[in-house]
Amino acid sequence: MAQETGNAPVRVDLGERSYDIWAAPGCLNQIGEIVLHIVNPTRAVVVTGTGAVERYGRLAADRLDEAGIPTELLRLRSGERYKTLRAVERLYHGMLRSGLDRKSVVVAVGGGVVGDVAGFAAGTYMRGISFVQAPTTLLAQADAGVGGKTGVNLPEGKNLVGVFHQPRAVLMDTETLATLSARDYLSGMAEIVKHAFIRDADFLDWLRWNADRLDPARRDAAALAQAVRRSCEIKAAVVVADETEAGIRAVLNFGHTVGHALESLGSYRRLTHGEAVAIGMVAACRIGEELGITPSNVTMTVRETLRSIGLPTALPPGMEPEAVARHMMADKKATSGRPRFVLLQELGQPVYGVEADAAAVLRALERSRE
Amino acid sequence: MAQETGNAPVRVDLGERSYDIWAAPGCLNQIGEIVLHIVNPTRAVVVTGTGAVERYGRLAADRLDEAGIPTELLRLRSGERYKTLRAVERLYHGMLRSGLDRKSVVVAVGGGVVGDVAGFAAGTYMRGISFVQAPTTLLAQADAGVGGKTGVNLPEGKNLVGVFHQPRAVLMDTETLATLSARDYLSGMAEIVKHAFIRDADFLDWLRWNADRLDPARRDAAALAQAVRRSCEIKAAVVVADETEAGIRAVLNFGHTVGHALESLGSYRRLTHGEAVAIGMVAACRIGEELGITPSNVTMTVRETLRSIGLPTALPPGMEPEAVARHMMADKKATSGRPRFVLLQELGQPVYGVEADAAAVLRALERSRE
Repeated sequence: MAQETGNAPVRVDLGERSYDIWAAPGCLNQIGEIVLHIVNPTRAVVVTGTGAVERYGRLAADRLDEAGIPTELLRLRSGERYKTLRAVERLYHGMLRSGLDRKSVVVAVGGGVVGDVAGFAAGTYMRGISFVQAPTTLLAQADAGVGGKTGVNLPEGKNLVGVFHQPRAVLMDTETLATLSARDYLSGMAEIVKHAFIRDADFLDWLRWNADRLDPARRDAAALAQAVRRSCEIKAAVVVADETEAGIRAVLNFGHTVGHALESLGSYRRLTHGEAVAIGMVAACRIGEELGITPSNVTMTVRETLRSIGLPTALPPGMEPEAVARHMMADKKATSGRPRFVLLQELGQPVYGVEADAAAVLRALERSRE
Repeated sequence: MAQETGNAPVRVDLGERSYDIWAAPGCLNQIGEIVLHIVNPTRAVVVTGTGAVERYGRLAADRLDEAGIPTELLRLRSGERYKTLRAVERLYHGMLRSGLDRKSVVVAVGGGVVGDVAGFAAGTYMRGISFVQAPTTLLAQADAGVGGKTGVNLPEGKNLVGVFHQPRAVLMDTETLATLSARDYLSGMAEIVKHAFIRDADFLDWLRWNADRLDPARRDAAALAQAVRRSCEIKAAVVVADETEAGIRAVLNFGHTVGHALESLGSYRRLTHGEAVAIGMVAACRIGEELGITPSNVTMTVRETLRSIGLPTALPPGMEPEAVARHMMADKKATSGRPRFVLLQELGQPVYGVEADAAAVLRALERSRE
């Protein structure tokens, strides 16, 4: 990774739907001028969560108002269990009460749930109006803020309903990360490191060199902006190559085949997303070893990087390899019951769509007990 | 309009999202091979209405099954008041129970409501899966079958939620029109004639020459296929020029500014959509006369064509010009309370986005009392 490159936005090049990502400490203060310049909307609604994030929602609404955009604030209850059609429906009613028309904008200020629900509402209100995103968790900044995926859960499963709706702009203010719990902070860090693992060995070195600035106890906002920025560049390059998920975008799922099974086994409470993915990345390396694809020194680097950050790398006590394997077979992305894996040939060099036989997966998971 | 040109499908050219429209008597019998050839889905769900249309839904499901596509039938309650988020939600559950995945297809067999609701479900299930449409009313064949608009109503208003989701294929079987009520049949005919008024004076001549074959009492399926086909060609050409409704697509709203107000004033029960649009087209001609845009002989042709078909051309008793004008001001498409009109300079030559002063509109509506 090159030296620090200032605060020029990252361009996500999707033709007519291109947009910029700003990643900088305090950039939420610029939201008024950015939205005015890029969208020039008739009105705005800021959608935010409840709790600590609300003050950032208010801040954004104030800045939009000051820029001359009539703005109202709508709150969603925080938490994955409120990522429902009912929440979207409540937003529609609030958007209508606020008088949003086809030239208005929805601004999401919050974590992944707020972004997914507000983005889906924006993508379907009057067949789609402008959407601006200001993710306030490290997980959402590293991951959910790029890609255009929006949607909600159904009782039958997660993210079963949604649309691709690209934002007009994304603002990632790393000062908002100060109030996250250490676990949530590390959950996002897992996705950032994942981007380094799959695409950029230099970025991995930079992350390791700057580990103290990125430590949960310190959270240097400038270093975080650099990390988030590079993470977004990597994800944006992959998304641009494959906007609707036909192929190469699969590499972003490194660690997620096992990770999703672990999250689901723990009923989405025992492990954070990042913790599950961290364990899943090490397991994927071991599956790669079993198949002769991943060199053992790569596994070692992945494992040690994650451990030094403070992320788990072994199956939690009580999660048995057989149960994990069974859950993977049931994953909706498994074609005819055979899970597919993203594996590393080298740091920064993934292969995707690899099928592994059940015996190799089980051996790898056995080795992931510690 | 050229002489009858056989049953080659009409191509709607939207780049990667291009698709064909088949319009022919009995073409619903080919749905199995068409869907197999074009989509080759893992499974299908046929969404249909209740009542007379159900047999066409069953027919389509049988043909799909015979083509080797595992298919289930889902029924929506018929009627505009069931065009709701709740109906979409029920479809999601049915689609999940049927095991639809990202490579599956939703086939809508029914009128406009079935197409709009099923299309929205298809456009949002797992962020969008394939959709095939077989409209079975003349209104849906003439109008709703082209354009990619899908969606539902909210308590606050019609079509406030939706997505653009283009079908992979459209089948318009004119034999399904035999069981429509005469009023519903004529409602669709109003849209077909509208397409002739705004784009094709030769087609208008053809319609007038073939009036006896198109009479509600006769409904010659071959002549109807020709009429529907040409109507779709006209609409498709306009939609291709303006996929997401920024400009020229507005010409399709000829007669609709006044028409929507009349429908709303009659609580969507007193007048069919086509009846309201027929009255609205004559009113638009008179507004055009007031503004010096529409020659009076154009108004006369529009009025006489509609009357000869059996459509109304005057405001129904009790609908006062002032009340109609007030409703137009409240229309969601009116920018800052000023309704915009599509007016005819000549047959086949519309202008759009025309603002008219309230006095001219009132004078024109006064003349529309008879």
